[in-house]
Amino acid sequence: MKFARFSLHSEQVVRSGILQNNQLYEISGDMMNEWGYTGQVYEEREVKLAAPLCPNQIIGIGLNYVPPGETPEWQQTMPVFFFKPVSSVIGPNDEIVLPKDLTEAKFEAEIAVVIGKAAFQVEPEDALNYVFGYTVGNDLTAPHYFHPNGHWTLGKVSPTFTPLGPFIETELALHEAVVRSGLNEKRKQDSPTSLMIVSIPHIISYLSQLMLLQPGDVLLSGAPAGADFLRRGDTIECSVEGIGKLRNRVRN
Amino acid sequence: MKFARFSLHSEQVVRSGILQNNQLYEISGDMMNEWGYTGQVYEEREVKLAAPLCPNQIIGIGLNYVPPGETPEWQQTMPVFFFKPVSSVIGPNDEIVLPKDLTEAKFEAEIAVVIGKAAFQVEPEDALNYVFGYTVGNDLTAPHYFHPNGHWTLGKVSPTFTPLGPFIETELALHEAVVRSGLNEKRKQDSPTSLMIVSIPHIISYLSQLMLLQPGDVLLSGAPAGADFLRRGDTIECSVEGIGKLRNRVRN
Repeated sequence: MKFARFSLHSEQVVRSGILQNNQLYEISGDMMNEWGYTGQVYEEREVKLAAPLCPNQIIGIGLNYVPPGETPEWQQTMPVFFFKPVSSVIGPNDEIVLPKDLTEAKFEAEIAVVIGKAAFQVEPEDALNYVFGYTVGNDLTAPHYFHPNGHWTLGKVSPTFTPLGPFIETELALHEAVVRSGLNEKRKQDSPTSLMIVSIPHIISYLSQLMLLQPGDVLLSGAPAGADFLRRGDTIECSVEGIGKLRNRVRN
Repeated sequence: MKFARFSLHSEQVVRSGILQNNQLYEISGDMMNEWGYTGQVYEEREVKLAAPLCPNQIIGIGLNYVPPGETPEWQQTMPVFFFKPVSSVIGPNDEIVLPKDLTEAKFEAEIAVVIGKAAFQVEPEDALNYVFGYTVGNDLTAPHYFHPNGHWTLGKVSPTFTPLGPFIETELALHEAVVRSGLNEKRKQDSPTSLMIVSIPHIISYLSQLMLLQPGDVLLSGAPAGADFLRRGDTIECSVEGIGKLRNRVRN
């Protein structure tokens, strides 16, 4: 099932719905718990999609795919985890705004995992039971602001730096998913999840050993090789087969 | 004005109120916006205080006080900023739980700044206009889980690692505030805000140059010298004169 949030072009209010055959069937209630159809149906092309959720928190994992052709091996060191602020989220087709003193920022197409149930100290075999669904994320980063001692925080916090969307797919076949990005129509990233170093169940399990994950938490599961820099005026399209395309233009 | 959240010992629901003369005057509505008195009044000693807010996000700053006797100078390098998850928050008198494979964690008494209005690219002179109030924070940390490349994330995420409370004081005289902690009644930290390297207005301004701060964001403004390790069975009391005492015991 594909959940979306959207607004009609004539109004500000954000509605929720389910996509089917290019139509959005509006729902009311909480998409992760109790919801029901309102009876309203909209054509997808008539609405403006928003980010498919307001995350509770956003946690990312550093470098997590081997280049195509290589075989992933569990890293000797622990993975790098970082947070991004919820104020960095935008939706499909929203503009990315670069900080005023930068000419570029890095894009990274990723699978964004939406946690659906509180998870603490769960085993990898059980981890996917805590997932509500998956969307596409673009983990924008300004490495220019990384701290010399290794902290990435300030390079990850800018408004518009976390595009999410277009839909939350609750039934993604993770092992068949392919993550891609294109910059101005030129292919940049193109990797199946089999190239992940730490698989999504292991990311959830690893994090949950120390941290209580909560419904609405979003895990950015790492970027395939090929992530690159974008500049003002560029258009970046991130996609995951089975979820959809997340396209954003960089404000001039 | 001192805002609190509390529950009656006989029930689960969390109420909000204003402390005056050891009594809590219950309010309804949003303490940062529209609220009104319900007419109910409770004795402070009859209620169980909760963390005085559910933060939108929690952002901390690394090492930010010089030892007593020294004079703060603006650091040459940029300050270290980090996030803590909202699932790490507990209230006054709640138990701290150490991760099962640790025998100790570090405590740090700090002034916790509660943002009241969206702040983006604000000047230091204007920064305090975006503050709703101040509470006491204990930034618990397990440096054992720091990443060798410098990322602190996993050392900061455990449930119960961010005690907050007891009240949000909206009229704290920042320049006169003193931050203290005592471990099992033994004084550990004791520094006035004049020993801060980056002042609170400058923290807000600095962060807001890149990040949109939102109402309910909590900034942990850094720890005075003397922060130390606690162990199971210990009692840690953090205080800021003018706000109150935040006391938590470590579960055995």
